[in-house]
Amino acid sequence: MTITYGPDRPCPVEEVPQWDIETDVAVVGFGAAGSCAAIEARSSGAKVDIFELSSAAGGSAALSGGEVYVGGQGGTDVQRSNGFKDETEDFHTYLLMCGGPIADAERVRIYAERGVEHFDWLRDQGVPFKGSYLPGKLIEPTTDDTLVWSGNEQAWPFVEKAKPAPRGHTVQFVGWGGGQELMSKLSERALSMGARAHFDCRAVALITERKGQVAGVVVKMGGKQAFVRARGGVVLCAGGFIGNADMVNEFVPEAGRCDHQVTGGNDNGSGIRMGISVGAATLNMQEFFATIPFYPPESLVKGIFVNNRGQRFINEDVYHGRVAHYVLRQPDRQAWLLVDNKAFARPMLQQDVTIAAIGESWEEVARELGLPVGALEHTVERYNQQAEAGEDPDFHKGPSWLYPLVEPPFAAISYCPADIQTHAFTLGGLSTRPSGEVLDADEKPTPGLYAAGRTACGLPRWGEGYSSGLSLGDSTFFGRQAGKSAAVRRSVVGAGER
Amino acid sequence: MTITYGPDRPCPVEEVPQWDIETDVAVVGFGAAGSCAAIEARSSGAKVDIFELSSAAGGSAALSGGEVYVGGQGGTDVQRSNGFKDETEDFHTYLLMCGGPIADAERVRIYAERGVEHFDWLRDQGVPFKGSYLPGKLIEPTTDDTLVWSGNEQAWPFVEKAKPAPRGHTVQFVGWGGGQELMSKLSERALSMGARAHFDCRAVALITERKGQVAGVVVKMGGKQAFVRARGGVVLCAGGFIGNADMVNEFVPEAGRCDHQVTGGNDNGSGIRMGISVGAATLNMQEFFATIPFYPPESLVKGIFVNNRGQRFINEDVYHGRVAHYVLRQPDRQAWLLVDNKAFARPMLQQDVTIAAIGESWEEVARELGLPVGALEHTVERYNQQAEAGEDPDFHKGPSWLYPLVEPPFAAISYCPADIQTHAFTLGGLSTRPSGEVLDADEKPTPGLYAAGRTACGLPRWGEGYSSGLSLGDSTFFGRQAGKSAAVRRSVVGAGER
Repeated sequence: MTITYGPDRPCPVEEVPQWDIETDVAVVGFGAAGSCAAIEARSSGAKVDIFELSSAAGGSAALSGGEVYVGGQGGTDVQRSNGFKDETEDFHTYLLMCGGPIADAERVRIYAERGVEHFDWLRDQGVPFKGSYLPGKLIEPTTDDTLVWSGNEQAWPFVEKAKPAPRGHTVQFVGWGGGQELMSKLSERALSMGARAHFDCRAVALITERKGQVAGVVVKMGGKQAFVRARGGVVLCAGGFIGNADMVNEFVPEAGRCDHQVTGGNDNGSGIRMGISVGAATLNMQEFFATIPFYPPESLVKGIFVNNRGQRFINEDVYHGRVAHYVLRQPDRQAWLLVDNKAFARPMLQQDVTIAAIGESWEEVARELGLPVGALEHTVERYNQQAEAGEDPDFHKGPSWLYPLVEPPFAAISYCPADIQTHAFTLGGLSTRPSGEVLDADEKPTPGLYAAGRTACGLPRWGEGYSSGLSLGDSTFFGRQAGKSAAVRRSVVGAGER
Repeated sequence: MTITYGPDRPCPVEEVPQWDIETDVAVVGFGAAGSCAAIEARSSGAKVDIFELSSAAGGSAALSGGEVYVGGQGGTDVQRSNGFKDETEDFHTYLLMCGGPIADAERVRIYAERGVEHFDWLRDQGVPFKGSYLPGKLIEPTTDDTLVWSGNEQAWPFVEKAKPAPRGHTVQFVGWGGGQELMSKLSERALSMGARAHFDCRAVALITERKGQVAGVVVKMGGKQAFVRARGGVVLCAGGFIGNADMVNEFVPEAGRCDHQVTGGNDNGSGIRMGISVGAATLNMQEFFATIPFYPPESLVKGIFVNNRGQRFINEDVYHGRVAHYVLRQPDRQAWLLVDNKAFARPMLQQDVTIAAIGESWEEVARELGLPVGALEHTVERYNQQAEAGEDPDFHKGPSWLYPLVEPPFAAISYCPADIQTHAFTLGGLSTRPSGEVLDADEKPTPGLYAAGRTACGLPRWGEGYSSGLSLGDSTFFGRQAGKSAAVRRSVVGAGER
């Protein structure tokens, strides 16, 4: 009788009928993390097999903007040639702040010190970067330019602690979705280096030895189960779990309430579940990236957000993802962007946004919104006085965005749940070392098991601190480390008992 | 060679040298959940062994106030005899709101429908309740009275959705810490029913069979490892993890920043870790109970909390734990309670609280606190006008607490981190069914493994929604279910293959 395995129960090695594939490093998932893991493992001389659920490489990274968040060491050559200096300490401080309450200091330190080297490495793999700088506050470049401001660098409180620099490095590509170019180059590189890819192939369960170490992985290919021996280790690069409604409902229901799940389609949580099945700890399963792209155009940043008490709650010049998290936790999840005639525009990515109120006075707008009498009027009056004086002592919006909202008509653009489009993906995953080793609740590694990308809880671990390019930066960099670790273990194990 | 086991790696049954103890139900931890699990398992005719790390029964519950949160079904006899009706739907709605974003609807439904029966059951076990009602806003009764308001029942937004009733049922005991009386009665009952207790005995690892089911537990007693076969199952009632600094740092660092860890000393996370080691999923590991007991005396509730923008942020008449979570997430974690001469008092539980500013006018207070000019003054002025009119449209504080702050001198009591004492315990734990069955990431049970109390993620799972008595109510009620489930499994398994 054939036993059918699933991601929640490992297959004991004693039950393996035969080894259908024997390799050094088995990589699960051929996205950003998987490609880079494969490249590095091949560089270290290991035999590599990649198991990919879909019919092509790319994963969710192929749908992204193709931005990689890097800097430090005085700057990448692109930062330098465009006149930006970026010291490691500033990059480090910024990344620590991005990580929020459970930032991983060791991971941040390594990434801050090696970001420049990593950028050069990506280029060495054939990923094209034009090298030019594109100023402005945008979501992602639709030109083929490279360097953009893609986070909270210039906004309070970040700007007070870390000297700002643009750090979003975007692959050379015209239009939305440069991720496809990035991924086509990285996956081609992995294949050209000799990694063997198995498409339409689902990893279904880990194979464990008595002492808990991972010996391989059961995969399903061509309608049959195959048993893969991985002498160095299995590297789980299977994405996050935003596409798994049950897991979202269980761990991060707030992300499930967002309108759009950011995924290439296969972020089904299977990598995380396989890790859990062998005793791995998970971290941060409740955290998610969310965005409400309320800009561009930039003029909207001159408006002010208020909640249903008529209170402001954020400096509006922060990254759109940070705004989203603040909006989502306002009382009754209600918020409006107040603009005057000069600031008004329709957000580029949601032209049909709801104008909840229009008036010749702020009192009229407040009445139309049904807010407590006097609250919104006072908020605008206070803001206008302070903007006039060029300061925002309450919320620290940058001076260049301060502008009194005095030209009627006045409007309130609705950011209430029913009226807006929100986008989300998960930031929680397996607990790992920067080396990719998967950890249990006692922070002890499980021999033979590695994870990277959104299967792991990596560099981006706090929705409020996200910057575009952090997830790709994390996946590519720590994917490399995981691939290398598995390859090194192969040589050590190989030199030993086997 | 003897293998030394630990909670992060199960012991395969093949490695068991001999069964030192054979039992039906092995209960790990002799606190509230463990006692009730043992009583119910014995009632079902199972042989029960309890393994307790310390030298006596009680666990962290013995240090608590001894309040159990119950109601519904028209009310317990204590609620009814004191004139309070409490319909199941109101109790249910309230509990759902308490659970926050990841409330467990099934668990809440069962508890709401059986709370009255559970209260009667506790009395049947010998736990004394005097039956009297003690009015007022308090932390826990120091008299021997029973019924108290112990949560957010009368405060917005709860009061708008669920008809309020007092539901804290406190064991008869004079002074602080009625939990010792509750636990002495429950543990005596378990022993008198024939449960066998092993003190000074540490559960070190689960024992698993090939297919992942749990066959028993390795314990350490008298300096030696002993192997315990549990034919029905192992019930993990080993408390939470607030006493494990590494785990707190990894999963819920915010709780680690609180001044006091609420624990009897043995909430070391070992129960949760043993669950993880066999593939269980954890839920809500980032959540914690926190409190800042800013009242009694009640007059302080008439004050208003402001943050360092001079904004109010909460209706001050909510439960002290809810206030704590709001305070902890204000910008820079800074907050002050503003009071006038009539409202002023020193909080009973922190007499040495810091008075950060005193003034003859609110302007003076604002200046002394260094807040943005005009912000705090406006907030107080607006509040006073509204309090005068008997309403609080911004934050919905109840009319009985609204009172203009007009009698100088005025003061700001500091609730900034350096000046206050905060208390915390963890609310995250193993994913379980209401039956106590421990679940994997796919919500499938692990045969032979059960958990209850703070080892599981139970009824209380949201710091902002906590009410005193919820954790004891949850631990005792769901401890019972887990004990019963393990005993029933014993009879089913016993009738089958073994």
